[in-house]
Amino acid sequence: MSAALDTLGKLDNPRHVAQESAVPRIDLARLIARIEALAQVGAIAGGGVCRLALSDEDRQGRDLVAGWMRELGLDVTIDAIGNVVGVRAGREALPPVMTGSHIDTVRTGGRYDGNLGVLAGLEVVAALNDAGVVTRRPIAVAFFTNEEGARFAPDMMGSLVFQGGLALDEALRTKGIDGTTVGENLARIGYAGPQPVGGARDVHAFVELHVEQGPLLEHEGLTIGAVTGVQGIHWTEFVVEGTSNHAGTTPMALRHDAGIVAMQIACYAREVARELGGGQLATVGHVKLTPDLVNVIPNRAEFTLDLRNTDADGLAQAVQRVFAFAQEAASAEGVRITHRPLADFAPVAFDERIVARVESIARERGHSVRRMPSGAGHDAQMLARMCPAGMIFVPSVGGLSHNVAEYTHEHDIEAGAGVLLDLLVELAG
Amino acid sequence: MSAALDTLGKLDNPRHVAQESAVPRIDLARLIARIEALAQVGAIAGGGVCRLALSDEDRQGRDLVAGWMRELGLDVTIDAIGNVVGVRAGREALPPVMTGSHIDTVRTGGRYDGNLGVLAGLEVVAALNDAGVVTRRPIAVAFFTNEEGARFAPDMMGSLVFQGGLALDEALRTKGIDGTTVGENLARIGYAGPQPVGGARDVHAFVELHVEQGPLLEHEGLTIGAVTGVQGIHWTEFVVEGTSNHAGTTPMALRHDAGIVAMQIACYAREVARELGGGQLATVGHVKLTPDLVNVIPNRAEFTLDLRNTDADGLAQAVQRVFAFAQEAASAEGVRITHRPLADFAPVAFDERIVARVESIARERGHSVRRMPSGAGHDAQMLARMCPAGMIFVPSVGGLSHNVAEYTHEHDIEAGAGVLLDLLVELAG
Repeated sequence: MSAALDTLGKLDNPRHVAQESAVPRIDLARLIARIEALAQVGAIAGGGVCRLALSDEDRQGRDLVAGWMRELGLDVTIDAIGNVVGVRAGREALPPVMTGSHIDTVRTGGRYDGNLGVLAGLEVVAALNDAGVVTRRPIAVAFFTNEEGARFAPDMMGSLVFQGGLALDEALRTKGIDGTTVGENLARIGYAGPQPVGGARDVHAFVELHVEQGPLLEHEGLTIGAVTGVQGIHWTEFVVEGTSNHAGTTPMALRHDAGIVAMQIACYAREVARELGGGQLATVGHVKLTPDLVNVIPNRAEFTLDLRNTDADGLAQAVQRVFAFAQEAASAEGVRITHRPLADFAPVAFDERIVARVESIARERGHSVRRMPSGAGHDAQMLARMCPAGMIFVPSVGGLSHNVAEYTHEHDIEAGAGVLLDLLVELAG
Repeated sequence: MSAALDTLGKLDNPRHVAQESAVPRIDLARLIARIEALAQVGAIAGGGVCRLALSDEDRQGRDLVAGWMRELGLDVTIDAIGNVVGVRAGREALPPVMTGSHIDTVRTGGRYDGNLGVLAGLEVVAALNDAGVVTRRPIAVAFFTNEEGARFAPDMMGSLVFQGGLALDEALRTKGIDGTTVGENLARIGYAGPQPVGGARDVHAFVELHVEQGPLLEHEGLTIGAVTGVQGIHWTEFVVEGTSNHAGTTPMALRHDAGIVAMQIACYAREVARELGGGQLATVGHVKLTPDLVNVIPNRAEFTLDLRNTDADGLAQAVQRVFAFAQEAASAEGVRITHRPLADFAPVAFDERIVARVESIARERGHSVRRMPSGAGHDAQMLARMCPAGMIFVPSVGGLSHNVAEYTHEHDIEAGAGVLLDLLVELAG
């Protein structure tokens, strides 16, 4: 790690780039063509994509992208959690500068979330190939397994295992929403690779290009976000167990209604987010009542709560307040409540030198730019535990993401890929 | 109707029963055996039953009960909405005295709800057959289609069409939770009968024996409930449409979260029920979020609201308040809300003469008894629109119903069937 940080000192000399060749340039049309082609895999109505992690569609997407990696001359390895890394050799056999993201999507996902970062990484490689540039360090492009967490919890699973924060065995045993495990599905789609995971790979630095997935850049008319860090994420699954009974004959005072307790907790979490302010977010995205009939008091309610905050203390306070309320509400209704963590990640700060260089490279290229935190979790936050890491954001039209209508303008894609190119070349020395 | 009421004047002379034969007696073992046999059709774990209306299980249950009707010598007819009526001839070709209920269940139903009323009716017929009693008027035993409404709305559909309150065509076109229609399913299971419906049949009086489905009789240690009426029922399906977006990047103030609005309305309805008191009930039993993922703000929430009250004004006030709040909550969140009625039945008062005779016959038989309203909707309330009608309740252990653990003690079943026997014989003259 200290060696990596020393070498990053070269950032003080931003003109130190490979000199022996033409200036590499992003080919926007080629990048867009790859985005379009990948978006056809698992395409759904409205222009969106459904490629849940380790599904058949994910396999097809993986095959397509890994094929492109090989066409570009990368040395492709697959590790035991299904992360795919393509390495472009450098002049020296040093730890690589890495970029990348993920290609799995939520059920009603867009075509840019994750995919842009991976395909822009490939475009950087293609640009370097075209220009005949050989960097001192290798450049690696990765896509990590199950970043979304829409099928298997926690999200960012592949990069978390890659970094060593989650044991491989535990990840492989994880059951998804359909009851099958990560391990089964990796084997089924042929992506349980031979490469070891868990910190075995030394990475010099990591940079991820991603769509903002929020409204801020568009709202302020800016092109590039220099991402300072990622907010903390706390996901919980609650199960409330009450008594099923007839909706017409059971007096309100004698009910043990699992459903109403779930809904009271959801409303309270919203209220806590409003009261705490300062960027505290609270979302209940999944609710399942049993037996789920109009005239039967639910005896079971399962629901998820997604709490996020850039401030660790604020997040802890939100968690504490909602959990305390959940116990009170359950007790008042005479129902049982249990909960299990699905994800719990503290806020992450990115490497200041990388944040500063994203900002300055953007300006050098004539783009408007601001520093900003990321609202969403990203693979870069896992890599930040093992090497200097940072992110580049480009605007999302209407702030839409996890939505089939997700869109980023082509000129913004070009700008973001250009910043990524310059930063990777600089880091690779 | 006026003729029917005149004849009911005979109720003033409670000793006016058939004299030409032995005294008919309920055979509890035979009645329990039929309850057990019917409970095997669609049996589910925990001793419960799943025979959703017009399912394959419902067909098997219908075949079994209609077979018993024929074995008992009843003249069985099936009408166009699938109601099955078995008639035991009287000495005169007058409009029959009718009893019965339903044999469909909710998804996690018990073995007594509905079934008891139908099978106790058959036991009355069997007792009359054994005793060689021929009543002046015919006695009819019916089971009505889709009383529960768990698959097709509205509930009490068969008796509503029978009475003429819902056009046959409209009922047949009704789509269920699986998207198929009542008409398709009636044809599929062979119960689209040739008998006309809609008030064509003249009924002298209707009496339904049913389990209480609530805790009151057990709580007060009583055996028989003389049901004074049925509370009003108002079922609504709400659909909230917002914008799907990323749970981590969308500030709380910029959200259009369909899910939270649904849950706010559910919590408010609970609050209205508490504030109004006086027996106002509010239940949200069904909720469906889309896309239903932990980290995606729901763009659609569908949910049902079941409001009930014995007091028509109270019910109207609850409906008005919840609907007004729904609009406010939707407006505050910037989402669209629509609703459609699934059922809307005003409170019903049963015929005072029948209520009084249930009370006095129970006392004559040595049972404790109280007058009480019904919390649940019943076929008897539809029949009350076309003839003098009433109901007999027996206790539900723990107040449980719409629950696999639903149970009524055998001595209470015997008591209820005995009151039904005496009342039917008396009404049939």
